[in-house]
Amino acid sequence: MNSIAVVNFAPKKGSVEIREIPRPEIGEDDILLEVANVGVCGSDLHQWTCDHSWPVNYPVVLGHEFGGHIVELGKRVEGWNEGDRVVSETAAVIDMNNPMSRQGLYNLDPTRKGFGYGVNGAMTRFVKVPARCLHAVPKNLSFEQACLTEPCSVAYNAVVMNSNINPGDRVLVIGPGTIGILCAAIARLCGAEVAIVGLETDNTRLEIAKQFGCEALVGDAYEWAMKYDGLGVDCVIDAAGVSATLKMALQWVRPNGQITKVGWGPKPLDFSLDPLVQKNVRLQGSFSHNWPIWEKVISLLSSGILDVRPIIGGVWSLTDWHEAFEQMHSGKVVKSVLKPV
Amino acid sequence: MNSIAVVNFAPKKGSVEIREIPRPEIGEDDILLEVANVGVCGSDLHQWTCDHSWPVNYPVVLGHEFGGHIVELGKRVEGWNEGDRVVSETAAVIDMNNPMSRQGLYNLDPTRKGFGYGVNGAMTRFVKVPARCLHAVPKNLSFEQACLTEPCSVAYNAVVMNSNINPGDRVLVIGPGTIGILCAAIARLCGAEVAIVGLETDNTRLEIAKQFGCEALVGDAYEWAMKYDGLGVDCVIDAAGVSATLKMALQWVRPNGQITKVGWGPKPLDFSLDPLVQKNVRLQGSFSHNWPIWEKVISLLSSGILDVRPIIGGVWSLTDWHEAFEQMHSGKVVKSVLKPV
Amino acid sequence: MNSIAVVNFAPKKGSVEIREIPRPEIGEDDILLEVANVGVCGSDLHQWTCDHSWPVNYPVVLGHEFGGHIVELGKRVEGWNEGDRVVSETAAVIDMNNPMSRQGLYNLDPTRKGFGYGVNGAMTRFVKVPARCLHAVPKNLSFEQACLTEPCSVAYNAVVMNSNINPGDRVLVIGPGTIGILCAAIARLCGAEVAIVGLETDNTRLEIAKQFGCEALVGDAYEWAMKYDGLGVDCVIDAAGVSATLKMALQWVRPNGQITKVGWGPKPLDFSLDPLVQKNVRLQGSFSHNWPIWEKVISLLSSGILDVRPIIGGVWSLTDWHEAFEQMHSGKVVKSVLKPV
Amino acid sequence: MNSIAVVNFAPKKGSVEIREIPRPEIGEDDILLEVANVGVCGSDLHQWTCDHSWPVNYPVVLGHEFGGHIVELGKRVEGWNEGDRVVSETAAVIDMNNPMSRQGLYNLDPTRKGFGYGVNGAMTRFVKVPARCLHAVPKNLSFEQACLTEPCSVAYNAVVMNSNINPGDRVLVIGPGTIGILCAAIARLCGAEVAIVGLETDNTRLEIAKQFGCEALVGDAYEWAMKYDGLGVDCVIDAAGVSATLKMALQWVRPNGQITKVGWGPKPLDFSLDPLVQKNVRLQGSFSHNWPIWEKVISLLSSGILDVRPIIGGVWSLTDWHEAFEQMHSGKVVKSVLKPV
Repeated sequence: MNSIAVVNFAPKKGSVEIREIPRPEIGEDDILLEVANVGVCGSDLHQWTCDHSWPVNYPVVLGHEFGGHIVELGKRVEGWNEGDRVVSETAAVIDMNNPMSRQGLYNLDPTRKGFGYGVNGAMTRFVKVPARCLHAVPKNLSFEQACLTEPCSVAYNAVVMNSNINPGDRVLVIGPGTIGILCAAIARLCGAEVAIVGLETDNTRLEIAKQFGCEALVGDAYEWAMKYDGLGVDCVIDAAGVSATLKMALQWVRPNGQITKVGWGPKPLDFSLDPLVQKNVRLQGSFSHNWPIWEKVISLLSSGILDVRPIIGGVWSLTDWHEAFEQMHSGKVVKSVLKPV
Repeated sequence: MNSIAVVNFAPKKGSVEIREIPRPEIGEDDILLEVANVGVCGSDLHQWTCDHSWPVNYPVVLGHEFGGHIVELGKRVEGWNEGDRVVSETAAVIDMNNPMSRQGLYNLDPTRKGFGYGVNGAMTRFVKVPARCLHAVPKNLSFEQACLTEPCSVAYNAVVMNSNINPGDRVLVIGPGTIGILCAAIARLCGAEVAIVGLETDNTRLEIAKQFGCEALVGDAYEWAMKYDGLGVDCVIDAAGVSATLKMALQWVRPNGQITKVGWGPKPLDFSLDPLVQKNVRLQGSFSHNWPIWEKVISLLSSGILDVRPIIGGVWSLTDWHEAFEQMHSGKVVKSVLKPV
Repeated sequence: MNSIAVVNFAPKKGSVEIREIPRPEIGEDDILLEVANVGVCGSDLHQWTCDHSWPVNYPVVLGHEFGGHIVELGKRVEGWNEGDRVVSETAAVIDMNNPMSRQGLYNLDPTRKGFGYGVNGAMTRFVKVPARCLHAVPKNLSFEQACLTEPCSVAYNAVVMNSNINPGDRVLVIGPGTIGILCAAIARLCGAEVAIVGLETDNTRLEIAKQFGCEALVGDAYEWAMKYDGLGVDCVIDAAGVSATLKMALQWVRPNGQITKVGWGPKPLDFSLDPLVQKNVRLQGSFSHNWPIWEKVISLLSSGILDVRPIIGGVWSLTDWHEAFEQMHSGKVVKSVLKPV
Repeated sequence: MNSIAVVNFAPKKGSVEIREIPRPEIGEDDILLEVANVGVCGSDLHQWTCDHSWPVNYPVVLGHEFGGHIVELGKRVEGWNEGDRVVSETAAVIDMNNPMSRQGLYNLDPTRKGFGYGVNGAMTRFVKVPARCLHAVPKNLSFEQACLTEPCSVAYNAVVMNSNINPGDRVLVIGPGTIGILCAAIARLCGAEVAIVGLETDNTRLEIAKQFGCEALVGDAYEWAMKYDGLGVDCVIDAAGVSATLKMALQWVRPNGQITKVGWGPKPLDFSLDPLVQKNVRLQGSFSHNWPIWEKVISLLSSGILDVRPIIGGVWSLTDWHEAFEQMHSGKVVKSVLKPV
């Protein structure tokens, strides 16, 4: 029984198309998931436009933000049943004996491989998932929202685990993409006063960001950063990742403050980090997420404390993947979601 | 009554000479200190060679690593007596109402001015010191050692307060200057396995570093960093501060590890910080020190747990300041100490 | 010029009455404050009913939760002006040279003395306040709310500084008095799911607590603590302070979780702390507050992120102090506020 | 093929004897270990004298501090080979799906069962061990020392993971048993000034403790705690666990300090915890250990930074178990070690 899939087939711009693939065979520690919804990630777009910086096992089914129902269980799988509503983490292949994995930080195991680039992802009907990746989705939480657990977990790791934000703190987020907006939303959940800063072309996204209770700034945030006592903000979250944003972050952050870097960019920095020393500032990289973070995020989504619906720009069928990708790529929507069946 | 002083008189290379200065008049919150010993700091050398990057109030008496006896007390000073043996912190002028000062972090008050560049320092017989800067020196601790409380406090802040180093951790220190060697020494006190890495020209200093129980490496530390599990070291302390050392630090540090940056350098970085994100690494700037750090360091020096004598390359009279500066500048000694009287 | 004051005059039950006192003379580091509002604290009630456990300098003007305008300045006071709207911290007398004070933790200086028991408090028209105790109150924040900065700071210290609460955590607060309710409110600001537990007689207060977005439980919280995964809650905040509540807290808290003890009680415990060891739990005492906490709380009150109006049960004139005390003592209101002028 | 084993066969005082048991059959995730050395733990003595407080699956082979060679591997075991030198963690049975296990804190999984009480332990020739429990022992580390990895890990968790001890801190350890002495040793590794306090009858053990660089006190430690600034010590580690020691700890600890409770005791406390609140003190329970702790301890033992030989009072054959138990029970030795083959 074959199903259609959104396949990235070569390291060339635009090398994504619908193909038919067979139903995966699962191992004894895996389950087979019937995908209900799968979000489009910026990294899916990067593989599509071929300006990504990670190795891809071509051809590969795209998609790593997904949830659905269990339809088959490997013989050693315990604690799960057919029909269970679940979302899946993204670290599809890890070395269980790696020291990072042994500490629960398998997301930092250098040998890991993820869905959508290392192994087949979820932009299709059936996907093979190791049982250790699963998290239960409560009935009251729709899959359209639940499939955003992954980017929420990226933001939760950046804002909660890798930053120290307290009620009354002032936080600046740079870059109103999915991750930036979710970081702003979670910083608000921490009781902070939050502003998000973007370019003039980000107007649509900045309007959406406002729905999460933060201010939206265009261009320069220096004035916002310095108001009250002139020393700067407690935390800057750099969700953009270019040289210029980190340079600004160093100006905006207060002494003994923090900059959290969740955005990437391969280009060299073109300034000195002396302000980091002089201000005794922490610059903290934040990468992906792990089991306890997923549980916290699902709990926030299920209780309604975190409501991601404002960032969902639409739901498309697999065959309309191109439209879904385009809408997001052009910035018309923050997040596109696909529905395989 | 005049005394001689080592005075930096102009923003020009070599503008340091012996001059006579009057005995300072103190305010009601100050004491007058008769200097017993004063260490030469790398920043004194930078002002001498005029490649410093901070504003200097010319002419100014150099020297901010010092201790001695109290000879006069302002009328509002409480808790101190004539004859008390003391060392002095370096933040000579601060805004007590600044939010950083109100939290005990006056070292990060942007308006502060220090001895030896902002106000007259201690390379002379008498120096005016605000009583809030003082720390008692136990009888069993000589002033030759006590005057190194300042650089030890820089290292303590970097290694203990701004890093998280536990027994059994592996730590790499880059740059075998005074601060680098003291960072290595304090990392050993934290129970870590420590190596310090320098250039071939650092041989003398690396030999001294070994006396603090750490390994000395020349050039590349990759192999040392990767031995055991191939993931890298728990912490890299960058006491060099050039672009190249931070780039290496990012290679040597393990996922979820830390780089502490205590070394400065005005030149731009020439690489991307993507490994910081990918490895979820903390890059922490560390600057100067404050009251509780000074107390801990004096306690370590007094108990003998930290013995700084190996780094003291000699003690010179004020009139021999040029020799003391030269020996240190050339790398023949790690630390020169002056004795005004 | 005399003013009336609510004076606690002897270590005997009911020894509180209105007396006339002269306008205080201030020292060179003090300001004179004209009190706009002063909150009634549980400790004022304890001194009234004489079941307090701290030394009192009889006779003493009660009241340590207060704000108003500056009407006079000592000659060394900088940074403040006549007419400034301010609230005052409570540590009226401290030893500036005490090691705790030197670290900004003057609230833990064992020699400190507070308003309302150690020196005259604010249930009167004029109160002498050291300038170091002052915090500016923004125009948009009324004194009725601002005078609650003190109990809010107690709660902020307990919940934010002395606990580690993250979005999605589950928190149980025991005891719906002022501090308990404010702890619940601030735990909600941290993004937690919060329940507060009281007795049947606490019904009025539990209803008020609900307005801060938390659930209200009567009697036993075991079921609430165990729902979801049966392991217990991330944090229990004990704002009651009797032996029985700590015993329950140990049952309700999950392994590796935390109990924060902000409530007092002189009676001995009657159980073993073995569950604390077995579950690897942190039991953290929390006491009062310091400068940065006051700034954060004022910022939360001023921005409206924290709205304390639901707990204010009424505002009385000084001469009606007895009614104000009674209403609060009987549990009819959570917090009574007085208005001297 | 049968082997002799030290078996605890009933919940009655003295119910330990040598019995013959068959060679264990291993599952697909297990290995079979040939025991080289096994330490006697206080809990083995408690089961022998039947004053333990945990459930025991009688009859059970005692012993959970052990190391040896792998002689057989289950078919799914990866990363290990026959002949490998290993030590084993103690959590023989855990629920891999428990939220604590999913975070790497399987030691706090309430369903776990350990060697020596829940399943057969290592006071015999062959013991079945899940591969996930194993840690490699470097060649230069003898099994006599390596078998003490377990109590060292208990101490490391208490002192390093569950306390915050920095160079120059002052630490008091109460109770000079194995855990107390190892806590003192590791606190010294953290750069602290350490004293250990015991009773007059602890003289032999206190002398051994001194070999780890700490002072030994008999009876009262108040004077030691208060010297220097009269505020108390930074950390008290209670390795005794009776009501009286925690009461003293509360007197000896400084404001904002910490008490770490690693000792147990079923008797009720008979005092109020008000000083914990008033001093803003952290009372932290510490229980067992997990994977990264074992790796750190093995590294400390292998590098010689931590040398446990002073506490090993002797090595006995299995048939001399009674003598080994007696020597330790009477306090004549700190730690007895058995050698099965």
